[in-house]
Amino acid sequence: MKLKDVQSLEDNRNIDIDKVGVKDLTYPIILKDRSKGEQGTVANIAMSVHLPKEFKGTHMSRFIEILNRHKDNVSIVSCSDILDEMHTVLNSDTTHIELSFPYFINKIAPVSKQSALMDYNCDFVAISDKVKGKDFILTVHVPVTSLCPCSKEISEFSAHNQRSIASISIRYHKKIVWIEDIIEIAESSASAPVYSLLKREDEKFVTEQAYNNPVFVEDIVRNITQKLMNDDRVSWFSVECVNMESIHNHSAYANITIDKRV
Amino acid sequence: MKLKDVQSLEDNRNIDIDKVGVKDLTYPIILKDRSKGEQGTVANIAMSVHLPKEFKGTHMSRFIEILNRHKDNVSIVSCSDILDEMHTVLNSDTTHIELSFPYFINKIAPVSKQSALMDYNCDFVAISDKVKGKDFILTVHVPVTSLCPCSKEISEFSAHNQRSIASISIRYHKKIVWIEDIIEIAESSASAPVYSLLKREDEKFVTEQAYNNPVFVEDIVRNITQKLMNDDRVSWFSVECVNMESIHNHSAYANITIDKRV
Amino acid sequence: MKLKDVQSLEDNRNIDIDKVGVKDLTYPIILKDRSKGEQGTVANIAMSVHLPKEFKGTHMSRFIEILNRHKDNVSIVSCSDILDEMHTVLNSDTTHIELSFPYFINKIAPVSKQSALMDYNCDFVAISDKVKGKDFILTVHVPVTSLCPCSKEISEFSAHNQRSIASISIRYHKKIVWIEDIIEIAESSASAPVYSLLKREDEKFVTEQAYNNPVFVEDIVRNITQKLMNDDRVSWFSVECVNMESIHNHSAYANITIDKRV
Amino acid sequence: MKLKDVQSLEDNRNIDIDKVGVKDLTYPIILKDRSKGEQGTVANIAMSVHLPKEFKGTHMSRFIEILNRHKDNVSIVSCSDILDEMHTVLNSDTTHIELSFPYFINKIAPVSKQSALMDYNCDFVAISDKVKGKDFILTVHVPVTSLCPCSKEISEFSAHNQRSIASISIRYHKKIVWIEDIIEIAESSASAPVYSLLKREDEKFVTEQAYNNPVFVEDIVRNITQKLMNDDRVSWFSVECVNMESIHNHSAYANITIDKRV
Repeated sequence: MKLKDVQSLEDNRNIDIDKVGVKDLTYPIILKDRSKGEQGTVANIAMSVHLPKEFKGTHMSRFIEILNRHKDNVSIVSCSDILDEMHTVLNSDTTHIELSFPYFINKIAPVSKQSALMDYNCDFVAISDKVKGKDFILTVHVPVTSLCPCSKEISEFSAHNQRSIASISIRYHKKIVWIEDIIEIAESSASAPVYSLLKREDEKFVTEQAYNNPVFVEDIVRNITQKLMNDDRVSWFSVECVNMESIHNHSAYANITIDKRV
Repeated sequence: MKLKDVQSLEDNRNIDIDKVGVKDLTYPIILKDRSKGEQGTVANIAMSVHLPKEFKGTHMSRFIEILNRHKDNVSIVSCSDILDEMHTVLNSDTTHIELSFPYFINKIAPVSKQSALMDYNCDFVAISDKVKGKDFILTVHVPVTSLCPCSKEISEFSAHNQRSIASISIRYHKKIVWIEDIIEIAESSASAPVYSLLKREDEKFVTEQAYNNPVFVEDIVRNITQKLMNDDRVSWFSVECVNMESIHNHSAYANITIDKRV
Repeated sequence: MKLKDVQSLEDNRNIDIDKVGVKDLTYPIILKDRSKGEQGTVANIAMSVHLPKEFKGTHMSRFIEILNRHKDNVSIVSCSDILDEMHTVLNSDTTHIELSFPYFINKIAPVSKQSALMDYNCDFVAISDKVKGKDFILTVHVPVTSLCPCSKEISEFSAHNQRSIASISIRYHKKIVWIEDIIEIAESSASAPVYSLLKREDEKFVTEQAYNNPVFVEDIVRNITQKLMNDDRVSWFSVECVNMESIHNHSAYANITIDKRV
Repeated sequence: MKLKDVQSLEDNRNIDIDKVGVKDLTYPIILKDRSKGEQGTVANIAMSVHLPKEFKGTHMSRFIEILNRHKDNVSIVSCSDILDEMHTVLNSDTTHIELSFPYFINKIAPVSKQSALMDYNCDFVAISDKVKGKDFILTVHVPVTSLCPCSKEISEFSAHNQRSIASISIRYHKKIVWIEDIIEIAESSASAPVYSLLKREDEKFVTEQAYNNPVFVEDIVRNITQKLMNDDRVSWFSVECVNMESIHNHSAYANITIDKRV
């Protein structure tokens, strides 16, 4: 028995759909890192295509088939091939894939030099347009310490400090920008880095380091902006920082977006 | 003793900040509804301003002071006044406020005519720019039932169906568009509305109604688009629908954005 | 036409169901507060009953009908009536209702004496058993500041500090314990309270206050435990504190549960 | 310079702490599966110990050191060794570790026999008490399809159906119970399994399968209970099912907990 292909029926509403596809797929992926080769992690994935007005629907199962054909090799690098395959298999001129995943770094404590894995949440968005070409945006959410310059200035001793999340999104061209590169930019723009393992001598070090480098949420996004403006690999960026204030029940935040191409 | 105003210090990095402010404030608000007057609800609030390159920081506490001055009257309507006050008090040319909140409607079951409150999540974004004027975007997330046309066509009986969330964002001008109006547009574009209270005769009704109105996620966004294209109050819109597929562990989604002003 | 009542059919698997009902209902509620009377807020609600082995199913729509009959008066106080009505309408010997909601307090800054609303997340669980009687558990999640005693001791200056959430659950009998009472117990057990509005003189005050009162996560739960042990209104309690460490990307936590009735 | 060990100071409040430790650690782990060997995934981890009243604090960094010593071998199996190491290194009589992670299965579509990876969220709690011995609880959250028997009975055609999450927690002794075993128990207790990849012939199959096997949320927990009562490997279990109702904006749920040891 041949089952009718309802999705391929003609549609007469004359309306293009910008994006149609699947989302909230959980899937293991492989990532290349700057130092030592490969790491496995787990991603939340969305895949979609542009649907021209002529067609009633896309074929949702094909997204999963494509993903499964790349089963042992879903990665930032293979996203480009996945996008190409989506053009063909789903018969569309514009294809999208989005991955969100934790990335692990073996982080070394500043004094004891003990090391431990630490996670950084990342997003990778890849778009392929048959006319405009490919476009990639990498976002890394970097936890850092921020210590308040106002609190330090006005208080006789100490200063309120807290965990902040500095989120850096970049478009790069010609040369690759590693996740590790972005983490370093964020950490050097805050009061101190954040670690998963700190012994007492390390805790003393980062406490004093933070007090010696007070920054507002405004300073963090400006410091990051200065570095990205001077980085020739980066053609566009958007920086956001959220301070989970230790003296409030709400957060402070700041955002700067700059397109160096215009 | 006069405490130093660190935020007002000059900054020499020469970098404007697009948005700086507070977020994740939880706050009671009052909303006007189409039918009967007012309802109280609770919002998650973000407020921010543009910070010119000359200043080291904004004054975060002033956001809270402004909000508290409008304590018994934070609403979609008063947002315009709040934005104006932010211009003055925070000395900025561009001001933003964002509210997310549940909105309640007394919904009547289709056959038994019994009524019960049902909640709809909404977002309201308001921006005031001294040069460009004010801009408002209202988003309503409407839960609906979707029943799959393909599953109905190919199966001897029944069809898979599920809860979907149709999210409609609009910019309106001249005439107000009520949250209730947007809910009606979404519900009439899906297989059936969703209710909080259904007696047996109602359950029979909506089960059959959904089977008689099968829609893909693509159909929902296209049906909504048709209605918004013909609504003169709406100058721009973005429609997204997410189907929490009953046969999969992931969701299907579709998106259409149209700016009628260009 | 009479529609068949499938739920009332007999079941032959011989298995009682501990709890069956509805959850994730969003609903406006009214709360009495210690100082000034009433406040409106929005709750996430779950309602359930014990289902004896004889019956195939409960009647889900009746939960919503009961809730709607109490429409303008869903509150901690009316929960007792709602439980009684569930016994009758759903024909069950054990009935449950759970509410989670933000509660607002007009909080006064320590030096400037400026006031602003601040939210505290609360949970209220009420159970009625025809044999054992009624049981109520009130939980309040109180954000506070914690400043690390180790970091203070070993560092030449400053100390890492962060927002912590101290969650106190209590069973009380005879006399009412207000949400405000629990907040005070939590705040006086930490390094400093958290506020929604702090002017510069207040920021100086809480910065110094926290440095003068360093506490580990262990100290917070022990300090709270001491107070609850000495509070005759409280017959059982469970205390948890989570520190969102400013120097780590993970949290520290501690928990103590004590039943004074045994 | 020797830095003072504040945590080891004596405490005079005379209060034991039930659990103190770290939580919300994200960490890569390795899992053994029933069929083919090993899979890598990412876990959210909490580790804690009982702290006797004599000590002011535990040593948080040691939890991370233990985890990192097991770096390439954090797994359900190695949890037992980790608990033992925690007894020694943290000098405590009761130690806990909790892991939450997605687990992947290569799932085969019922008619086309095409296969694709599907994820199942799992929790593993392990406790070691020097007196009582070790205790393990494995929870698997299995997405399934539920089709409403009432809606089927009263409607002329079709029936509302939706994604449900059946969560099964078990204590096992003597013989291992695989995650795959629990998934099979849940899927065979619902209207139909859920898949990540279904071609048209499969979609027809599961649509008709669900209509032929209508179940209330009560039926799902009772069907699972029947199977677990007859499984000699299982000594205790708790079953919960949540139906994300396609005709409502809230969920239906049911729960049964049975301790076969009493």
